[in-house]
Amino acid sequence: MNINDNYLKLKDSYLFSLIAKKIEEHTTAYPDKDVIRLGIGDVTLPLVPAVVKAMRSAVLEMGNAETFKGYGEEQGYSFLRNAICGYYSKKAVTLRDDEVFISDGAKSDLGNILDIFSTDNTVLIPDPVYPVYVDTNIMAGRKIAFMNGNAGNGFLPLPDKNVKADIIYLCSPNNPTGAVYNKEQLASWVVYALENDAVILFDSAYEIFIRDECLPTSIYQIEGAKECAIEFCSLSKTAGFTGTRCGYTVIPHELIRGGAALNKLWLRRQTTKFNGVPYVVQRGAEAVFSDDGIAQIRHNIDYYLENARLIADTLTELGIWFTGGENAPYIWLKCPNDMSSWDFFDYLLEKNGIVGTPGAGFGANGEGFFRLTAFGGRENVIAATQRIKNLKFGR
Amino acid sequence: MNINDNYLKLKDSYLFSLIAKKIEEHTTAYPDKDVIRLGIGDVTLPLVPAVVKAMRSAVLEMGNAETFKGYGEEQGYSFLRNAICGYYSKKAVTLRDDEVFISDGAKSDLGNILDIFSTDNTVLIPDPVYPVYVDTNIMAGRKIAFMNGNAGNGFLPLPDKNVKADIIYLCSPNNPTGAVYNKEQLASWVVYALENDAVILFDSAYEIFIRDECLPTSIYQIEGAKECAIEFCSLSKTAGFTGTRCGYTVIPHELIRGGAALNKLWLRRQTTKFNGVPYVVQRGAEAVFSDDGIAQIRHNIDYYLENARLIADTLTELGIWFTGGENAPYIWLKCPNDMSSWDFFDYLLEKNGIVGTPGAGFGANGEGFFRLTAFGGRENVIAATQRIKNLKFGR
Repeated sequence: MNINDNYLKLKDSYLFSLIAKKIEEHTTAYPDKDVIRLGIGDVTLPLVPAVVKAMRSAVLEMGNAETFKGYGEEQGYSFLRNAICGYYSKKAVTLRDDEVFISDGAKSDLGNILDIFSTDNTVLIPDPVYPVYVDTNIMAGRKIAFMNGNAGNGFLPLPDKNVKADIIYLCSPNNPTGAVYNKEQLASWVVYALENDAVILFDSAYEIFIRDECLPTSIYQIEGAKECAIEFCSLSKTAGFTGTRCGYTVIPHELIRGGAALNKLWLRRQTTKFNGVPYVVQRGAEAVFSDDGIAQIRHNIDYYLENARLIADTLTELGIWFTGGENAPYIWLKCPNDMSSWDFFDYLLEKNGIVGTPGAGFGANGEGFFRLTAFGGRENVIAATQRIKNLKFGR
Repeated sequence: MNINDNYLKLKDSYLFSLIAKKIEEHTTAYPDKDVIRLGIGDVTLPLVPAVVKAMRSAVLEMGNAETFKGYGEEQGYSFLRNAICGYYSKKAVTLRDDEVFISDGAKSDLGNILDIFSTDNTVLIPDPVYPVYVDTNIMAGRKIAFMNGNAGNGFLPLPDKNVKADIIYLCSPNNPTGAVYNKEQLASWVVYALENDAVILFDSAYEIFIRDECLPTSIYQIEGAKECAIEFCSLSKTAGFTGTRCGYTVIPHELIRGGAALNKLWLRRQTTKFNGVPYVVQRGAEAVFSDDGIAQIRHNIDYYLENARLIADTLTELGIWFTGGENAPYIWLKCPNDMSSWDFFDYLLEKNGIVGTPGAGFGANGEGFFRLTAFGGRENVIAATQRIKNLKFGR
């Protein structure tokens, strides 16, 4: 009996536990000072009324013999897959319903998709990055190449012809940086993938935050992407589903590698190792895409975007470099006075009672940077920006 | 770019699509004849009132800012893990809450657990078998050895000292045969696993159907099992959750292989590739284990067990060999007159309008056998037994 010893190569992630420990020490030392958390990557607004109504009604259906639902199709109910196709049609992207797979979230699918690829593939991952991309590939023993995000490229790395990769991770709007690729930039990735027989894993979990109509909200808005990209999206941030769990993955029929349709491989993976998303959740997800649902979630996203704007405006006023803050719920700033990420974390917490996330926690290129999020309550965001202004970062 | 070419070694599963095709042909040819389906492996009774109440209340919580829940712990809320520990304590099994992992179902976990084991392990799988055990290992390129279930051993194969395996699948009560291991038999597997440094993957998805108090409902009722077994259970059949999706996996801290605690490896897998089960579903699952919930689901299980008894009594009356039919929702019968599984399928459908599942679909040893399930409505079960009696299988 041997275990998968790739697991032993994983680094323990101390990021959020270390943050929690430092907050606890701070609140113990200064019990009277309040702490404002701008580090959370979780939504705070509740499910919208259209979703609650649909889910309550679906629960009742499940309690009635006439309307009870047992096993559904592993790839999701067609009512939801069709609703998602309708959502894409508004982006001028045409999908067939069997190109859409409903899942319990983008995190699961981004990890599980690797199942259909050989472990001898080389993966290309941006740095800084959502840690799941790295860890899932370490678990499978894949060779990982990193592409550098930095202030010079606005944390939007572009293809390097000298680097050969088979699987490419892109996330736009980006977590943790909030940076968004434009169409030309994404197109250069599509060209690279097609030339290298590579597959792009495109994480569009934050697409709903894009308000600039020139920016792409789906990689399939780029010509040729259906031949080289899988798109992962989630209702977690779109509709506050972080605790309700529903996402979707799009694999176009045009996407063929090694003579095999990746859509069919993924269908086989899902029908073998997955049993679908709860009916009640799928009805809630369907309601997200209704006219009422879209209007209601847009209202919530407006709220988060206004938080982001308030933070961004404060940083602009102070002359601090940052990316994100518009078309994204994240603000990625350069720590003032060349502080390290953790020094700035300590400084902000101790002087200001504000908690953010040290950029170094997202990769080597994150050192010297810092992430603030727009998911807090308005009052806290305003209070935090006021404190930051008063501090003037030691100037 | 290479795909995982183990996927190309998978056999297409035509079992249920072929059954559907044959039913369609039959109903087209004989539109006036009704068809009774005793092949379904899905529950038909709705969610019990305690679960519906808890889920409706949880949906309301999710719609209110004060009670809204975002991300939960990947391994599940402690309220549910504690409820499951309480359920196990009634089986005289003591578990710590961090030995219980909540998931979206046993199928997912039975597939995903393989992630933590090396692909060079040899797996031992019973035949006939739930096809997921086989396919998930083919996908990973593992060497598979089969153990033969047959009428001689009551479809309960026991360890063979000459076969060396690292991972052993056991399912009791069994799908598809309905056979149940007794304590002595399970103990012989625990001894084998301990002697061979192997791990037993124990699928207890049908434990709720066991009414004979001498039979084990958890492998941890066997001494030494905590050092060699992972137990997978599900609320799918227990509480009609096939469309609501909740299961749990138990990995005791005592289970160490290659110097690593499997509990910690699985925790790492789940925190990296999974984001937990919907809060609303976990509240529903918690209600299953309440006093009201247990009483209500027991009532449903009684109903299915009575269906099983009616079918079993009919077969006994006709002198047909079978296993299962008590302590299980499945009846596994030897096709009369030495018919093949598919011949008997055709015979039952054409002469009788009854649909079952050909045993050959579950593996080579299933040839000549046939599965009936107890999940139908009472009226249909009674009508079916009457038809079977009248037919007398060609005698």
